[in-house]
Amino acid sequence: MSAPLNRLSLNQMTTNQWNVREAVEACARHEVPEIGLWRHKIAESGVAEAARSVRENDLRVSSLCRGGMFTAATAAERQERINDNKRAIDEAAELGTTVLVLVCGPAPDRDIDGARRMVQEGIAAVVDHAGASGVRLGIEPLHPMFAGDRSVIVGLAESITLAEKFDAHQVGVVIDVYHVWWDPDLYAQITRAKGRILGFHVNDWIVPPPDHLKGRGMMGDGVIEIQRIRRAVEAAGYDGPIEVEIFNQALWDAPGEDVMKQMVERYLTVV
Amino acid sequence: MSAPLNRLSLNQMTTNQWNVREAVEACARHEVPEIGLWRHKIAESGVAEAARSVRENDLRVSSLCRGGMFTAATAAERQERINDNKRAIDEAAELGTTVLVLVCGPAPDRDIDGARRMVQEGIAAVVDHAGASGVRLGIEPLHPMFAGDRSVIVGLAESITLAEKFDAHQVGVVIDVYHVWWDPDLYAQITRAKGRILGFHVNDWIVPPPDHLKGRGMMGDGVIEIQRIRRAVEAAGYDGPIEVEIFNQALWDAPGEDVMKQMVERYLTVV
Repeated sequence: MSAPLNRLSLNQMTTNQWNVREAVEACARHEVPEIGLWRHKIAESGVAEAARSVRENDLRVSSLCRGGMFTAATAAERQERINDNKRAIDEAAELGTTVLVLVCGPAPDRDIDGARRMVQEGIAAVVDHAGASGVRLGIEPLHPMFAGDRSVIVGLAESITLAEKFDAHQVGVVIDVYHVWWDPDLYAQITRAKGRILGFHVNDWIVPPPDHLKGRGMMGDGVIEIQRIRRAVEAAGYDGPIEVEIFNQALWDAPGEDVMKQMVERYLTVV
Repeated sequence: MSAPLNRLSLNQMTTNQWNVREAVEACARHEVPEIGLWRHKIAESGVAEAARSVRENDLRVSSLCRGGMFTAATAAERQERINDNKRAIDEAAELGTTVLVLVCGPAPDRDIDGARRMVQEGIAAVVDHAGASGVRLGIEPLHPMFAGDRSVIVGLAESITLAEKFDAHQVGVVIDVYHVWWDPDLYAQITRAKGRILGFHVNDWIVPPPDHLKGRGMMGDGVIEIQRIRRAVEAAGYDGPIEVEIFNQALWDAPGEDVMKQMVERYLTVV
C-alpha cells in the first residue's frame, strides 16, 4: 500500500524555482497538506509574511530547515552559531512547526572528533530554548560524502547516539533516504530510533549520480528501496509527515507545476 | 615519526598517464620499492611482460587491483565474474603479489541485501583457488557514495564482517583512507580488523571535492587525519606496504615525474 496523501509534504527545495508564497499556493492547488520551509527562502519576505501565507492556505509546516552548523574555529564564532540557532527556533515557533532540522556542520580543521564535540555542545546550548518554544530538534545525519563540507554527523547510528544524550521529547533524528540508504545496519538503526524519529524525507539515488549535491532523483528514478524504508520507519512508530526533498538542477529548471504533478504521482505510486 | 620509505608503494592509478613499464621504471628511479598494479594496465602488454618489467627493476608488487564485481543479474553472468576473478588470481600469482584487491560490485537492481549475498557467494566460489595460488583476497570497503555503481560493500565494519566468514589467512580487508575517514566508528573497527588487514591506501579528501571519482587529493591537501589512521592501522599489527592511490584528473594531466616527486615528499612529511 502506498503512503497516504495526507502525510505528503513538499520540502520547498524541491521547487527551488519558487518563493515561499508560490510554493505554498502550489501545495494548496495540488492538495498537498504540508510544506517544509527553508530559512533562506523565508528571509526573502520575512517570517511573518511566510506564516501568514501558510495560514491563509490552510497548510501545516512539517519542519523548518535548517539549524545546526555548530562547528567553527573560535568560541566567538560558535557563540554566533548558537545565537543563530535560537533565532531559527523562534522562527520555527512563529511558523507553527514543531521541528527544526539540524545540519550539524563540518570540522573547521582536520579534527573530526573535536568537531563532533562542538556539535554536542551546540545542541546543549540551545535545547532549553527549543523546549521553551515548543520546538524539537531533529538531527539529520548526512551522507558521508558531505562529512568534509556540511556535517560531521554522518550515519544514522551516530545521530541516534548524539540524540540520546538529550531528552527524547526534545532531540531526535530526521531520516532522509538519500543520506542513509547505503547503510548495512540501516534497519536495525531505524528500529533503535523508535521514539526519536522527528521527520522522514524521500527522494532517490540515481546511478551514477549526475551530481552529488544537486543530482538527487525523483522517487522511482533511482535504486533506493523507498517503500521498504518507509515501512521500517512506520514500524518504529513514526506516522508524521513524509517530506519530498529533492536537490536537482534539472527539476529546478523545469516548470514548477510539472514538478508538483510528478511529485504527487510518484509519491502515490512509489513511496 | 613519518612512515619509512621502504613501505611506500606507488599504486599505478596515481600516475595513470604512464603504462606499466613507465611506472615501474619511475619507481626504480625514485627508490620507491613497491608498486600496486591494475589489470587493465597490465592487459596492454600482457602479464608476462609486466612481471618481467617488475623483476628487472627489482620491485615488489604490493597488490593487484582489482578482482570483485561479483554482482550481476543472472547466474550465467555471475559465473563469468567468478571465472574472471580466478584469472585475476592467476595474474596476481604470476606477478608475485600475495594480495588481490576486491571491489565487490553494485546491485544489479534495487535489492542491496541480495547483492551483498552475491558478493559473499562470489568470494566463496574463488577462495580455494586463491588459497592454492598463494593469493589472499583483500575486500576494500568503498565510500558509501559508490554504493550505487561500484560496491555494495561500504564501511569498514561490513567488510570485516564479510571477511570473517572466511579463514583469516585467506580473506581480509584493504583500508583506504578516502573510503573510511568519515566513519565515527573507524578506530574501533581498525582495532577489530587486527590480523585481517591486507593493505593500506593513502591519499586525501579535498574540501569540497572537485569531483567524487577523480578528485582525490595528494596527501596533505585535504582534511583526512592520515597519520592518526596510519598509527591505528599499525597498532592493529599491519606493517605492510602503504600504497599511494590517487584518482585525480589534474595529477593525470601533470608530468608524471612531478607527481612522483611530490608523492615521495608528501609521503615522508604527511603520512
